Amino acid sequence: MFFASDNWAGAHPEIAASLSHHATGFAAAYGTSDLDRAIEQRFNEIFEREVAVFFVGTGTAANSLALATINRPGGVSFCHREAHVIEDECGAPEFFTHGARLVPVDGPDGKMDPNVLVREIERFPADFVHHGQPMAVSITQATEIGTVYAPDEIDAIAAVCRSNGIPLHMDGARFANALVSLDISPADMTWKRGVDIMSFGATKNGCWCAEALVVFDPEKARDLPFIRKRAAQLFSKTRFISAQFEAYFADGLWLDLARHANVQAQKLKRCIEQSSKIRLAWQPQANEVFAVASRETADRLREKGCVFAPWNPPRSLPRPLEKEEVLMRLVTSFATTDEHVDRFADLAI
Amino acid sequence: MFFASDNWAGAHPEIAASLSHHATGFAAAYGTSDLDRAIEQRFNEIFEREVAVFFVGTGTAANSLALATINRPGGVSFCHREAHVIEDECGAPEFFTHGARLVPVDGPDGKMDPNVLVREIERFPADFVHHGQPMAVSITQATEIGTVYAPDEIDAIAAVCRSNGIPLHMDGARFANALVSLDISPADMTWKRGVDIMSFGATKNGCWCAEALVVFDPEKARDLPFIRKRAAQLFSKTRFISAQFEAYFADGLWLDLARHANVQAQKLKRCIEQSSKIRLAWQPQANEVFAVASRETADRLREKGCVFAPWNPPRSLPRPLEKEEVLMRLVTSFATTDEHVDRFADLAI
Amino acid sequence: MFFASDNWAGAHPEIAASLSHHATGFAAAYGTSDLDRAIEQRFNEIFEREVAVFFVGTGTAANSLALATINRPGGVSFCHREAHVIEDECGAPEFFTHGARLVPVDGPDGKMDPNVLVREIERFPADFVHHGQPMAVSITQATEIGTVYAPDEIDAIAAVCRSNGIPLHMDGARFANALVSLDISPADMTWKRGVDIMSFGATKNGCWCAEALVVFDPEKARDLPFIRKRAAQLFSKTRFISAQFEAYFADGLWLDLARHANVQAQKLKRCIEQSSKIRLAWQPQANEVFAVASRETADRLREKGCVFAPWNPPRSLPRPLEKEEVLMRLVTSFATTDEHVDRFADLAI
Amino acid sequence: MFFASDNWAGAHPEIAASLSHHATGFAAAYGTSDLDRAIEQRFNEIFEREVAVFFVGTGTAANSLALATINRPGGVSFCHREAHVIEDECGAPEFFTHGARLVPVDGPDGKMDPNVLVREIERFPADFVHHGQPMAVSITQATEIGTVYAPDEIDAIAAVCRSNGIPLHMDGARFANALVSLDISPADMTWKRGVDIMSFGATKNGCWCAEALVVFDPEKARDLPFIRKRAAQLFSKTRFISAQFEAYFADGLWLDLARHANVQAQKLKRCIEQSSKIRLAWQPQANEVFAVASRETADRLREKGCVFAPWNPPRSLPRPLEKEEVLMRLVTSFATTDEHVDRFADLAI
Repeated sequence: MFFASDNWAGAHPEIAASLSHHATGFAAAYGTSDLDRAIEQRFNEIFEREVAVFFVGTGTAANSLALATINRPGGVSFCHREAHVIEDECGAPEFFTHGARLVPVDGPDGKMDPNVLVREIERFPADFVHHGQPMAVSITQATEIGTVYAPDEIDAIAAVCRSNGIPLHMDGARFANALVSLDISPADMTWKRGVDIMSFGATKNGCWCAEALVVFDPEKARDLPFIRKRAAQLFSKTRFISAQFEAYFADGLWLDLARHANVQAQKLKRCIEQSSKIRLAWQPQANEVFAVASRETADRLREKGCVFAPWNPPRSLPRPLEKEEVLMRLVTSFATTDEHVDRFADLAI
Repeated sequence: MFFASDNWAGAHPEIAASLSHHATGFAAAYGTSDLDRAIEQRFNEIFEREVAVFFVGTGTAANSLALATINRPGGVSFCHREAHVIEDECGAPEFFTHGARLVPVDGPDGKMDPNVLVREIERFPADFVHHGQPMAVSITQATEIGTVYAPDEIDAIAAVCRSNGIPLHMDGARFANALVSLDISPADMTWKRGVDIMSFGATKNGCWCAEALVVFDPEKARDLPFIRKRAAQLFSKTRFISAQFEAYFADGLWLDLARHANVQAQKLKRCIEQSSKIRLAWQPQANEVFAVASRETADRLREKGCVFAPWNPPRSLPRPLEKEEVLMRLVTSFATTDEHVDRFADLAI
Repeated sequence: MFFASDNWAGAHPEIAASLSHHATGFAAAYGTSDLDRAIEQRFNEIFEREVAVFFVGTGTAANSLALATINRPGGVSFCHREAHVIEDECGAPEFFTHGARLVPVDGPDGKMDPNVLVREIERFPADFVHHGQPMAVSITQATEIGTVYAPDEIDAIAAVCRSNGIPLHMDGARFANALVSLDISPADMTWKRGVDIMSFGATKNGCWCAEALVVFDPEKARDLPFIRKRAAQLFSKTRFISAQFEAYFADGLWLDLARHANVQAQKLKRCIEQSSKIRLAWQPQANEVFAVASRETADRLREKGCVFAPWNPPRSLPRPLEKEEVLMRLVTSFATTDEHVDRFADLAI
Repeated sequence: MFFASDNWAGAHPEIAASLSHHATGFAAAYGTSDLDRAIEQRFNEIFEREVAVFFVGTGTAANSLALATINRPGGVSFCHREAHVIEDECGAPEFFTHGARLVPVDGPDGKMDPNVLVREIERFPADFVHHGQPMAVSITQATEIGTVYAPDEIDAIAAVCRSNGIPLHMDGARFANALVSLDISPADMTWKRGVDIMSFGATKNGCWCAEALVVFDPEKARDLPFIRKRAAQLFSKTRFISAQFEAYFADGLWLDLARHANVQAQKLKRCIEQSSKIRLAWQPQANEVFAVASRETADRLREKGCVFAPWNPPRSLPRPLEKEEVLMRLVTSFATTDEHVDRFADLAI
């Protein structure tokens, strides 16, 4: 029962097969091969507009270079208090922006409250040089705690960005999981709502290593080839990323894989709702389920072979932990089997 | 006839098979799986000592993080004038070191002249704060122009480093090619000669994406986990790199692949020596052959399907180009077939 | 009535006279003149030990270079939530450390609560690379809100630092004001309590531009000459800083000036305690007085010529503002006259 | 006989007097006082157009922030091989631009040859991401070796910049000396010739510490307040810089001081031309004289109290040094007395 993280899974067989298929022959390096161009074109189709796409190696790279692209001296970016960029990237966003800061914004369910966002932005009045200047807002979709911004919630954040002249970034490490959860189109979840730049993650959803930085207005990406190369993120054999994306997008595989993961998460959710020993921390909407149990129960689950991550209770936890209770994160993926879920269900009753 | 670069090749079938083999199942992420540990152990065996190994995604990352590891304020690194770090990495080494500079050192055959190196280092007297302070020497093995430092040449550079208290870095993007060219052990080509830290490249020699930073004194690598993560080079599914290295090292595959590439380069060399239209720019020792021809000959080769890179004549070119002559770089790899070489031979006569 | 800031004052006549005295003649540049050496020696005497001293131009420079000196990759520094480094330096500390982060620590009276500090440090377990690693603790003495860490309060913070192996920095922009408030020696307020490195400010206390970075273990300052020069903080005519320090330290002028400022602040405090319209926000201990009044009262004070800074109510404000109340900061300095204070007293009744 | 550097002088009495004059009273901090505004207006008058002016503390700061203002990812700046930015700033320009590189350009008399500049720029073709992208050209006026770009020489460099879309920076650490040497207006030596941004130095010409960054198109300076503050170069008591500039510009003092220095340099030149023991290295045009003598002569001069800097012979030295000859730099300033020059003359015969 591997629920530790979606990055404990390997690669979907179609992804592996595509890589092997493209292992032979010669192809231009550094993103200039026919296959690379074809995948860039696929991104245009998926987003229903011309976009600028830059493959990178990690989600941290995508997020950091997104912020580097819209960087400003003394810049301040705003993200949810529990966001990956501020909590789990070892300062990479600050490093690649030469010290631009991240300000945590509170909000329930792992999502920024737009009113709190407004108040935080107001702390940085134009021309008060001592505080710095607003530079970006970053939302995570799906969020770090398995919830999903509804379209009108993205609208509300985007409106704040627009009225303050601040670009909006979306960390889409689990983009596909959010997409199938909302059942809308990629365009409807991003640029049509005001997202300017995004980190498009595929690694957690069945690839080995396939991340992309997508800029919706290609004009604004003019320095990105240099930003990426200087950041050591221009791969020589780019076909090994393109080949993964080729299979990922073929016949809607990516959406199928995300749907599978989300369905398994919903099954876990129902197990927990019916359990007398474990309760849901909040309602899961994508492929992460957070649950509360006594330390004893958690230990027993672990002894029985259930691999999960203990989680620091976030500020926004709706109901505080009781003494001796712990918070557990259970993540599903394309590779989560019914058998794993069923075994968990047996243990959780 | 693809001689543009060794990174135009894909992956060797054994590498691809290993990846597919490890596609299934669950494994701990971020470099903590059993497979990751096993590969680290393989590096110890290969280098005949305990080393610290850090997988990264690109050769530029390996070089840049090597310099970042031994970084100093106002630091100055010394490398050959034609080295990859100074010519072809878009300033990544300067970026990751926050502005540490690279000083070009001249020398014949693409190799630093140790006497010139001494003179360049002397330009930075201790305590003259205005110039900055020496921080690293970096050699490329095999060099950017297909030559190889002989063991005693490495000794001479290492002696300069030692007497100045400067660490020695080796850019081993084509490490295996140099190794089989010299027919010595990895230990004998590196730490036994005074190399402190190296970029171990496997991508050009049959992998898709497998690079490693090797620190010979693990004590000096204590901050590297943070340096790598902050640089967005810690991959989540590290098994996709480990799996490549597993096959790469199995049964000496890596040395076989490098030998094949070198042999094909020697064949090209002999074709050119016998050609009346093309001449060698200098003697190749690894898997790169540089040749001089009239523009007309070069164009005809290209028309006939020979893909190669035009090359800016380096300062150290032994015999200057005649008017209308051009310099061509021909690179062989594990994937270079006899047929390609034979067709080139036919055209070159 | 100028209470806007202590940096609205000019220079004390003795400081100006010393500068004019040293205007003539020739002296070695870049910190190597006899006068520079003599001032460095004065610092040794003042701190009762050999220290390494580096003149810089601004308090922001001193703080930023202090953190740059003890910088670590993925580094995290801890400071009070209202500290100057985190609130008012436009990201300079993050810039000079290439992205090392500042984590706000809560505590009453503008001072870090050592227990909260412990909990914040515990959020960064050794070897959990994703969060980063603790790198420094920074306290401000006197604090940003005019309070002063008592000796045992510094001891408590220093104990946390020691047990976690983290160096302790003191931002002494108002060092002299704290010193005379506590009536202890510079050594007793710093290295004898566990402070490793400090920003020694003289600008706010009667100089034009005289700041210094003091490292208590000179061995740890070996790279600082390069850090400072690379940061564009090595002045050519260093005598213009040394001359200020010469007068500043002569006959205890610096302590007299700080005492004067503190006395004036105490007078303001008593006015406010006796006022029916204004109340103290908290007890002032150095040369800053924070007071609460209705917006109407504040406006009237301003109309009558009282210059002060409106202040965002900090989280640690003991008694929340009533509706229509505002917080005012009143800062005294060596230049604050009795007349100014008396006029304020008249208005405040 | 102090000819070591113009920064061995102190401050002109008028400068010192102005500082003392402004020592009293209260003034708004951080560049917002009436005096600060008045000096900014003086810069507009001096340059005959509206400019954006930013005071900083050192010439290295002015140069580095100028490059930071026009920074680009993977950026490459071009300057003369002997320029201060590339030789004597400990990597500060690289640091403040996060690794943008400086490429040395050769040319006689310490001045870039525009044809060589063209060839160097051509090494960085647009879209060849591996090399980086051209970002700035920087000229020094007067040059590091005491020569001066003639107006048509600036035109030629500016034409190269324009045709390549690269901004032109002027390092004016000795701006006034060049100005009086050419006897043209500040506008004619800068923006009317195509200079976009400049470092305006006054420290070497009679101030203690007064440097400014001047941007000729204020629109392009919008981020500079944040760039400067983040670089720790925003002084709180800016009046101490403004007061220096007030006296510096009053009644053309700055031009008088530069003329004095240049006249003294011409006297040194004539001494040397008449000397049998010393010869001119090249023709001085501003306030620096470079001379060649036997080591014995140089030692004797030093013994007799002549303070000068030994200088590494630049590549562009017209006539190579004989064995046992050394190169000496003699710098004059506002403070160089006739007596010093006469004593030198006596010794030099």
